[in-house]
Amino acid sequence: MIDSNVKQADRIIIGIDPGTNVMGYGILGIYGKKPAMIAMGLIELTKVGDHYLRLARIYERVSMLVEQYCPDEMAIEAPFFGKNVQSMLKLGRAQGVAMAAALSRQVPITEYEPRKIKQAITGNGAASKEQVCEMLVRILGISRDSLLPKLDATDALGAALCHFYESGKPAIAKSSSWKDFIARNPDKVRGL
Amino acid sequence: MIDSNVKQADRIIIGIDPGTNVMGYGILGIYGKKPAMIAMGLIELTKVGDHYLRLARIYERVSMLVEQYCPDEMAIEAPFFGKNVQSMLKLGRAQGVAMAAALSRQVPITEYEPRKIKQAITGNGAASKEQVCEMLVRILGISRDSLLPKLDATDALGAALCHFYESGKPAIAKSSSWKDFIARNPDKVRGL
Repeated sequence: MIDSNVKQADRIIIGIDPGTNVMGYGILGIYGKKPAMIAMGLIELTKVGDHYLRLARIYERVSMLVEQYCPDEMAIEAPFFGKNVQSMLKLGRAQGVAMAAALSRQVPITEYEPRKIKQAITGNGAASKEQVCEMLVRILGISRDSLLPKLDATDALGAALCHFYESGKPAIAKSSSWKDFIARNPDKVRGL
Repeated sequence: MIDSNVKQADRIIIGIDPGTNVMGYGILGIYGKKPAMIAMGLIELTKVGDHYLRLARIYERVSMLVEQYCPDEMAIEAPFFGKNVQSMLKLGRAQGVAMAAALSRQVPITEYEPRKIKQAITGNGAASKEQVCEMLVRILGISRDSLLPKLDATDALGAALCHFYESGKPAIAKSSSWKDFIARNPDKVRGL
């Protein structure tokens, strides 16, 4: 089932929400211009007592996901600000091991702030987890019942969908020459 | 040359000082009760522009070192406090990718604060880099000339040596039973 979905996809994006207590992931397949969820899930880390075992678990699971789904890109939900330096160091390590699993397999990474993800999916950067979930249900056509028990994984799936939207945007054309600039801005050129 | 040194060692400790601009490493061989340097070096990252390429470089190089020297343990120099949350997040990522390279090969990790390393090697937790370097020259019998150009790698070699000292300390005996406690503390037991 999963295999045929993966094979038929034009592009696979893996979304990761790395944390030190729970890590969420979402696998998004792009079929033509249509995104669809292939898989999503949580990696519970609270029962893994040791800090290093938690990091090892994250690395192993992300490695497995990358090998299983062969994603073309990885999108990471990455807060830029945290409560304190201690929690940021721990978060950085969790992100680092997840990134290592992708980088060692040449999967390019893009980071998105939580606010950016919420904005891209709901149009509101301050949307609640439930609102993001509701939009994912509508956009991806997944059942609410399958999503609710994995509410923490919606951020990861959201990161993947945000990356799909962002990468589909046309790049802002840069002025390559003075001639181009004049052509695009005739009102800014004063007669001599 | 390296191969025979590695083969003859009873134990190999890899010391890592992960940073986002430069990463130092030191390989320490233990022969009986005597430590000796097998290798040390720096991985320059300032010329690698992209943040992810830097992380990928750290992961690759630490992976190579682990495969080349087959260390039994890894010791990491890890500051517990940083200037701000941004720098700690970056440091955490650098540590994370280095740790992933060890953890994915079942190499156990121990962290040491910079102060602890300096204390273990020079007897002074506030010692300068030069003082640590001087003691490493004396203890490991390496030439000052070979060490000085790689001054930033001394922290990594210092972490490995600190781990050797710390792991050699006898563990503090824990009281396993009330009987043991009475046997060791007869003065604390009052007659009934």
